[in-house]
Amino acid sequence: MNHIPKIEVIGITGIPEITGGEPLGELIAEAARAQGTPLRTGDALVVTQKIVSKAERRLFDLNDILPSTLARNFAERTHKDPRLVELVLRESRAVVRMDSERGIIISETRQGFVCANAGIDASNVPGDDIVCLLPEDSDRSARNIRAEIRRCTDGAEVAVVISDTFGRAWRDGHANIAIGVAGMNPVKDYRGTPDVNGVILKVTTIAAADELAAAAELVTAKAIQVPVAIIRGYEFERMEDAAIDPLIREPSKDLFR
Amino acid sequence: MNHIPKIEVIGITGIPEITGGEPLGELIAEAARAQGTPLRTGDALVVTQKIVSKAERRLFDLNDILPSTLARNFAERTHKDPRLVELVLRESRAVVRMDSERGIIISETRQGFVCANAGIDASNVPGDDIVCLLPEDSDRSARNIRAEIRRCTDGAEVAVVISDTFGRAWRDGHANIAIGVAGMNPVKDYRGTPDVNGVILKVTTIAAADELAAAAELVTAKAIQVPVAIIRGYEFERMEDAAIDPLIREPSKDLFR
Repeated sequence: MNHIPKIEVIGITGIPEITGGEPLGELIAEAARAQGTPLRTGDALVVTQKIVSKAERRLFDLNDILPSTLARNFAERTHKDPRLVELVLRESRAVVRMDSERGIIISETRQGFVCANAGIDASNVPGDDIVCLLPEDSDRSARNIRAEIRRCTDGAEVAVVISDTFGRAWRDGHANIAIGVAGMNPVKDYRGTPDVNGVILKVTTIAAADELAAAAELVTAKAIQVPVAIIRGYEFERMEDAAIDPLIREPSKDLFR
Repeated sequence: MNHIPKIEVIGITGIPEITGGEPLGELIAEAARAQGTPLRTGDALVVTQKIVSKAERRLFDLNDILPSTLARNFAERTHKDPRLVELVLRESRAVVRMDSERGIIISETRQGFVCANAGIDASNVPGDDIVCLLPEDSDRSARNIRAEIRRCTDGAEVAVVISDTFGRAWRDGHANIAIGVAGMNPVKDYRGTPDVNGVILKVTTIAAADELAAAAELVTAKAIQVPVAIIRGYEFERMEDAAIDPLIREPSKDLFR
C-alpha cells in the first residue's frame, strides 16, 4: 500500500481576549497545551491578523484624524466615514483603483499588499470609532511568535504564517492569504520537477503559505473565538530567513495595477 | 473544555492512470476504500482538474489546428507555439490582457474563469503535441462524480469540488481554486453574523470552495499521483443545485478586467 498523505488542521481554542501587549506566542503555546494538542516541531501555525494587530496595539481612534479634501470628496459620494477614507489613504503607498460609484478603494498598502481598504477593519474591535490596522511588519510579528513558541515549549520548531482575509480580482468571496511568514519558505517550487510522463514541469510555483492560510480558515472562521490553527503533517521547507516578499508580485511585473 | 474544531485532509492514492471514459466517481470511491479511508457522508472531495479532463477526453491534438494571423503574430513575438496560442484564443470568450513582451495571455475562458492560457496545460499528458483543456462544464463533472459516489457506496452524501491551479493578480505563486462544485454552497456567508463584541459583520462572504481546493493542494501536490483529497470534518452547507457561478465575479462589477 502507498503512503497516505494526510494533514490535520486543528483550531486552537481558549486564547484569551487580546487587548494589547500580550506575548502571543506564549498564549498560543499555552492554549494548545491546555486543549491537549501541544505544539510540536514540524507544525505550521496560522495566526489570524486581528489578534496580531491587537497584541501589537495597532488600533487607531478615528477621532484623531482630520480628513483630507480627497477623502472628504470620496466619502461624500460614497456615504462613507471621511476619517476612515483618510486613514485608508494614509495606510497606502499607491491607489490601484478608487471606484466612487461602489465606494471601493483598492490600494497597495505600506507593507506592499494589494487589497481593499488597506486591510483596515472595524469588526471584533472594541469601540465605535476604533479600527484595526495591519501589523507594521507581519514577518517580524511571525518571527517573534515563532521565537516565543520555541522558548516556552521544549524548543518546538514551528512555521508561523500570519493570515488575513482579502478579496480577489475576478472572483467573488474573500479568502485567507498570508501576510507574514517565519520559519518556512512561503513558496513551493515545482519548476524542474518531472511529471508522471517524465516531462519537466515548466511553470509551477505554488503559494504554499497562502494555501496554509486558506486551509486554516476552514477551522478559524470569522466571528468565533478560534484565532489560530495548527496545520500538522504538512512538510514545509524550513527557512530561517523567510519573508512574505516572494508572494508579492513586483508592481512592474503586474498586469493588474 | 471547548470543542476543538478539527479537519483532516487525506490524499487518495492508488487511482489508476486515467486515459478517457473512466467512471471517476467509482474509481475514487474504490481507491478510498482500498486505502482504508472509505468515503462518508459529510466528506468534501477535491478532485483535480487534470483527471476530470482526461476522463472526459478533453485532450486536444495541436496538429489539428490552423493558427489565425493574430495567433501567429503573437507566437512569433513571444517564441510560443502558434497552434497553442490559437487554441488559447479559441477557448476564450474575451482577452483580458495580452502581453507580447512576456508572452502572457490572461483571458476569460468559455466557462467564465479568468486565468492564463485559458487553463490549457501540457503537463502530465501523453504525447508532445497533446494538450489538456478544462472540462466543458465542471459543475456537471462534479455532479456526475457525486452521483456515482452515492451509487457505489452506501449512499454517501459528499460534496465535490473540482480544483485547478491558477495564477492570481498582485500575488506571485499559483494557488488551487475551485472551478466546479456539487452538493455544497461554494460560498460561506457571514454577513449579518455578530462578531465577538456583538457588532454585525458587514462584509464577509468567504469563498469556501476555493479554500477547500487550496487545502487539498497541501496533499495532492503536482507531479505526484494523488489527484484527489478528502476533506473530513468541515461543515459545508449542503446545497443540491450548487454551481460555481457565485464565485465568479460579474465582468460588469469587476475592476480588473
